[in-house]
Amino acid sequence: MKAPLAVVVLAAGAGTRMKSALPKVLHPLAGWPMVRHVIENAKRLKPARIVGVVAPGADAVAGAFAPHPTVVQKQALGTAHAARAALPALKGHRGPVLVVFADAPLVTAASLKKLVDACRRARAAVGVLGFTASDPTPYGRLIVKDGKLERIVESRDCDAEQRKVTFCNSGVMCIDGAQIERLLGAIRNNNVKKEFYLTDAVAIARATGRAAIAVAGDEAEFQGVNSRAELAVAEKVMQGRLRAQALADGVLMTDPETVWLAADTRFAADVSIGPCVRFGPGVSIGEGSEIKAFCDVEGVRIGRGVLVGPFARIRPGSVVADKVHIGNFVELKATRMARGAKANHLAYLGDSDIGAASNIGAGTIAVNYDGYGKWRTVVGPDAFVGSNSSLIAPVTIGRGANVTAGSVITEDVPVGAIAFGRARQVTKKGRATALRAKLKDRAAEAKRAKKR
Amino acid sequence: MKAPLAVVVLAAGAGTRMKSALPKVLHPLAGWPMVRHVIENAKRLKPARIVGVVAPGADAVAGAFAPHPTVVQKQALGTAHAARAALPALKGHRGPVLVVFADAPLVTAASLKKLVDACRRARAAVGVLGFTASDPTPYGRLIVKDGKLERIVESRDCDAEQRKVTFCNSGVMCIDGAQIERLLGAIRNNNVKKEFYLTDAVAIARATGRAAIAVAGDEAEFQGVNSRAELAVAEKVMQGRLRAQALADGVLMTDPETVWLAADTRFAADVSIGPCVRFGPGVSIGEGSEIKAFCDVEGVRIGRGVLVGPFARIRPGSVVADKVHIGNFVELKATRMARGAKANHLAYLGDSDIGAASNIGAGTIAVNYDGYGKWRTVVGPDAFVGSNSSLIAPVTIGRGANVTAGSVITEDVPVGAIAFGRARQVTKKGRATALRAKLKDRAAEAKRAKKR
Amino acid sequence: MKAPLAVVVLAAGAGTRMKSALPKVLHPLAGWPMVRHVIENAKRLKPARIVGVVAPGADAVAGAFAPHPTVVQKQALGTAHAARAALPALKGHRGPVLVVFADAPLVTAASLKKLVDACRRARAAVGVLGFTASDPTPYGRLIVKDGKLERIVESRDCDAEQRKVTFCNSGVMCIDGAQIERLLGAIRNNNVKKEFYLTDAVAIARATGRAAIAVAGDEAEFQGVNSRAELAVAEKVMQGRLRAQALADGVLMTDPETVWLAADTRFAADVSIGPCVRFGPGVSIGEGSEIKAFCDVEGVRIGRGVLVGPFARIRPGSVVADKVHIGNFVELKATRMARGAKANHLAYLGDSDIGAASNIGAGTIAVNYDGYGKWRTVVGPDAFVGSNSSLIAPVTIGRGANVTAGSVITEDVPVGAIAFGRARQVTKKGRATALRAKLKDRAAEAKRAKKR
Repeated sequence: MKAPLAVVVLAAGAGTRMKSALPKVLHPLAGWPMVRHVIENAKRLKPARIVGVVAPGADAVAGAFAPHPTVVQKQALGTAHAARAALPALKGHRGPVLVVFADAPLVTAASLKKLVDACRRARAAVGVLGFTASDPTPYGRLIVKDGKLERIVESRDCDAEQRKVTFCNSGVMCIDGAQIERLLGAIRNNNVKKEFYLTDAVAIARATGRAAIAVAGDEAEFQGVNSRAELAVAEKVMQGRLRAQALADGVLMTDPETVWLAADTRFAADVSIGPCVRFGPGVSIGEGSEIKAFCDVEGVRIGRGVLVGPFARIRPGSVVADKVHIGNFVELKATRMARGAKANHLAYLGDSDIGAASNIGAGTIAVNYDGYGKWRTVVGPDAFVGSNSSLIAPVTIGRGANVTAGSVITEDVPVGAIAFGRARQVTKKGRATALRAKLKDRAAEAKRAKKR
Repeated sequence: MKAPLAVVVLAAGAGTRMKSALPKVLHPLAGWPMVRHVIENAKRLKPARIVGVVAPGADAVAGAFAPHPTVVQKQALGTAHAARAALPALKGHRGPVLVVFADAPLVTAASLKKLVDACRRARAAVGVLGFTASDPTPYGRLIVKDGKLERIVESRDCDAEQRKVTFCNSGVMCIDGAQIERLLGAIRNNNVKKEFYLTDAVAIARATGRAAIAVAGDEAEFQGVNSRAELAVAEKVMQGRLRAQALADGVLMTDPETVWLAADTRFAADVSIGPCVRFGPGVSIGEGSEIKAFCDVEGVRIGRGVLVGPFARIRPGSVVADKVHIGNFVELKATRMARGAKANHLAYLGDSDIGAASNIGAGTIAVNYDGYGKWRTVVGPDAFVGSNSSLIAPVTIGRGANVTAGSVITEDVPVGAIAFGRARQVTKKGRATALRAKLKDRAAEAKRAKKR
Repeated sequence: MKAPLAVVVLAAGAGTRMKSALPKVLHPLAGWPMVRHVIENAKRLKPARIVGVVAPGADAVAGAFAPHPTVVQKQALGTAHAARAALPALKGHRGPVLVVFADAPLVTAASLKKLVDACRRARAAVGVLGFTASDPTPYGRLIVKDGKLERIVESRDCDAEQRKVTFCNSGVMCIDGAQIERLLGAIRNNNVKKEFYLTDAVAIARATGRAAIAVAGDEAEFQGVNSRAELAVAEKVMQGRLRAQALADGVLMTDPETVWLAADTRFAADVSIGPCVRFGPGVSIGEGSEIKAFCDVEGVRIGRGVLVGPFARIRPGSVVADKVHIGNFVELKATRMARGAKANHLAYLGDSDIGAASNIGAGTIAVNYDGYGKWRTVVGPDAFVGSNSSLIAPVTIGRGANVTAGSVITEDVPVGAIAFGRARQVTKKGRATALRAKLKDRAAEAKRAKKR
């Protein structure tokens, strides 16, 4: 049996270049905090433990790791110092320890697995994930000889020969758990910045006759995020991956570059998506459904053969069954729409249950908030709610009932009843001319008053 | 006089890589089914006949060809087999036969014409549309000697010399109608896939001393569509062409890359289009009109000096005259707006006629649907419909009439009348505090109940 | 003390390739007329005078220069002829005269300053802003020898040696004010087009023993705008600059390429902007505020911790205080929202003042227009306006008052009062079946009538 894996996620970086009060690793990427991508990737390797290393007071970052434990790096004294902070949480662990960075969310689980597997096979003390850089200038070079990693040379320390090396250090490292305490303990901070660098573990391992290896990943994976501009680039790369996967799964997108997906968006086949659609987290969409242009969709399970949009917004906590239609300028919030229900125009349905095959007229508002509490509106199946109605929650419209257009509904409507809540029309013949003359005078007077 | 042209459109491909229940060639491209682009391009050559070759049971595809006839290819046994299926429909035809592919919608009419013209001039038995490939690896090579096409060598059959050839086969072919039956009949399926390849026609023609030629088109035209990703690429290319044409015609676009056009969108000069505007099929827009950001416009003739959006949606069957204003969160469906009419905010006008210079207030709904039928709302010229009104169709508001805000209008309003359909205000002084206390208590109680 | 600077902006070009009734230099770029970018850049150099040269009758262009004077170039006889038209307006000016082009809005103030400074240092009679062209073919070449500009050779006049020169003329020129009259006067139109070219000033200066220099800028700055397509490219370049600056300032953008900024958009740190957001001119946004996807925002000062959108539109003349929420399908026009006020769904607030912590319900309309005048709606602090209400302006809702949902409010509501303006609900049990049968019959009859 293989010795179990542990993953240490370094998440204590300051991120001052983000110019933000929010810790860097909590900035959003494809609908998740950046660090969550790193944690979820780690989880795909089925490690026995995941340990986060966070900065002092970074409770929100620690929260993002839950239920995985975190340790606090009390001072920012370098990557080896950060990894060292995790040692107490690794007590008793003997298998490989993978060290990854919370601000490098594009590294794939496949690359991580490749590194760990290679380390196991080679019984390496240290393994490093490297990449061939199009421009190696800023990176540490991986000096490999006879298939073994000899050492990592920082960019500024390269001689002419080393400067030509294009195989570079990504930072991601896998260290033998039986040796990690010794290796980290041997790292010194005798450098310009007085920091403890994890990269030194390679030379230390080699100096004591241990094996070190390097495994190659793709350069695009190792783009770190240190600024808003880099975050925007990472978002673009991540979106590119998610879109390609959706297309391969049989989703139609008129313009994939204007569809923004969350990391967890799920599509069945033959889903169509128009241009300019944003998916927040927690969305799944059934076969043959169509999300038209200009929609904002988050936290909803959408069935089969559903039409949404254009200009629809679905907010979290909603469930939309098969054959439902949700039209333009319609907002759903924490609302269930049963099979075949329709709300096609200018409506707000909040905290509502809309029954099967019911029709919600244009301009209908489920009045869910009274200034203090939020209340539910329940519309039974096969009901017809006329346009411009206000349903004052808590209220129930019975099965097969009709609410006439323009009604304010304050009391429950029984099954099969008609409810009116509107005034009768009064028409005053020939009176518009006089009214208009009056309004015109008033406007003219106001204009004069303004000038005075 | 020139012998007439026939065009055979091969549209029987399975398209399994699309992962869709919809036949591949019906997938949308710039608002049309893909195959329609190919048919429309063929029509520009003014052929005597167009024949579609479709798969068994593909009635929807056959429907896309109407009124042009289609024949069924009973089994998928290769391109020559497909073309052969069209022979009965070409009975008596003696001029050139152009064979094109329904899943290659980017080939331009200009390139097709160039091929046919060259074949006529050269009295060629077979002509092939070729292109210089940036990477020829996957393509058949066109071996040309002394201006004549010698043969087409499939990629896998190339020798070292042929592999260097970058002039490649697009698949589009023009065959002399007098010889097509003989040529297709001579093609054999003695190959790995046991298919009949149209490309063999070249060698067969040459073997019998007939002329074959190749004509060059642009590589970008010959991108076929076999997957959702390739469809997205084709859409991008097509949009690029349409946008460039619109810009050249004098249209202002803030960001052309976020304007999605249909193949038949028509603009006069000095039209302005904001970012994020989608045009469905059937739109024409008159001089000096402006479509602001975030609009979805389909099936409407828009006049001159019209303002639309932002956030407006116009649905098919609408006609918008000069100087009309359609503002934010407004939906038009099968609605005519006469000169100078305005609907500036949050309104639904369905199945309506709005008279010249009339003003439709914010939040107005034309209540066109009662659960069973759709009815028309007619608003005369110079009428004023107050905000938040519900016009219960069928209903007519006369010329110069006023509907007061918040009214439900169930009966016709005569010319020049004022109509009220709302309750009179009742104010209860000092009562809000008690009401709020009650609502607050109710909310608190609900919260407690939830916890229990 | 330095001699003062004058800037001449050539803005008389016809722009026929734009195919527009609007003068070319007034076409919008990042929310400003193109020429305004050039004027604002000129102003950063703190010149003593700015003079615009405009075409006859181009009053709108002259208006864009105000309060700076303009002169009219009566005929389009070349750049030197245009510059000469400005001479009367430069009467008495002795310092450098910078000549820039209104249709080259991407030239940066930094490049202009570099040219002027270099001319001052070198006591040059003429200085030219040049650039290294990736493809120099269409441009005049700058022939520099020993650090001095010898002359400018038009592309068509280049010999083999000159054709290899990649250092090209941008058109931007700085001329010594003491010599400008003489230099421009010496330029002749003995060329194919019979035009007076400003570039000839170099050779004329050198011929009389004066110094001429060339200063290098970046090629991307010198993209002129002569067509809609070039305008779209210029917009993209300008947006790229503005977005990069915003990211550097600490703004989060999910997809910067779908955020359209105006030249004067101002952000505090930690502002978040979703995809598909358009900013018109005159927007500033305070710290920690979020503009969600699909918003159109113009002419508004937004405070701190504000939430806007998705699908919100804010129009000019609005002020939004800290902690305000503006939700989906909400339009604000010339409206102030005080601290913590909320309008979360489907509302139109025009010409309104909404008090602190007040809540505006879904579907509320401030009815500001009666067909003749625009009137204000004032809602006091801590008020609660129920959903689907119509507030008929001019009207005041007092502090702490409640307006019940669905009310039409025509009279002021006192502090702490409750106002109703809606009918009481009437429920008719068991009557929906009969109503539906009737509606069904009516629909069927209409269908039959249609067929007849």
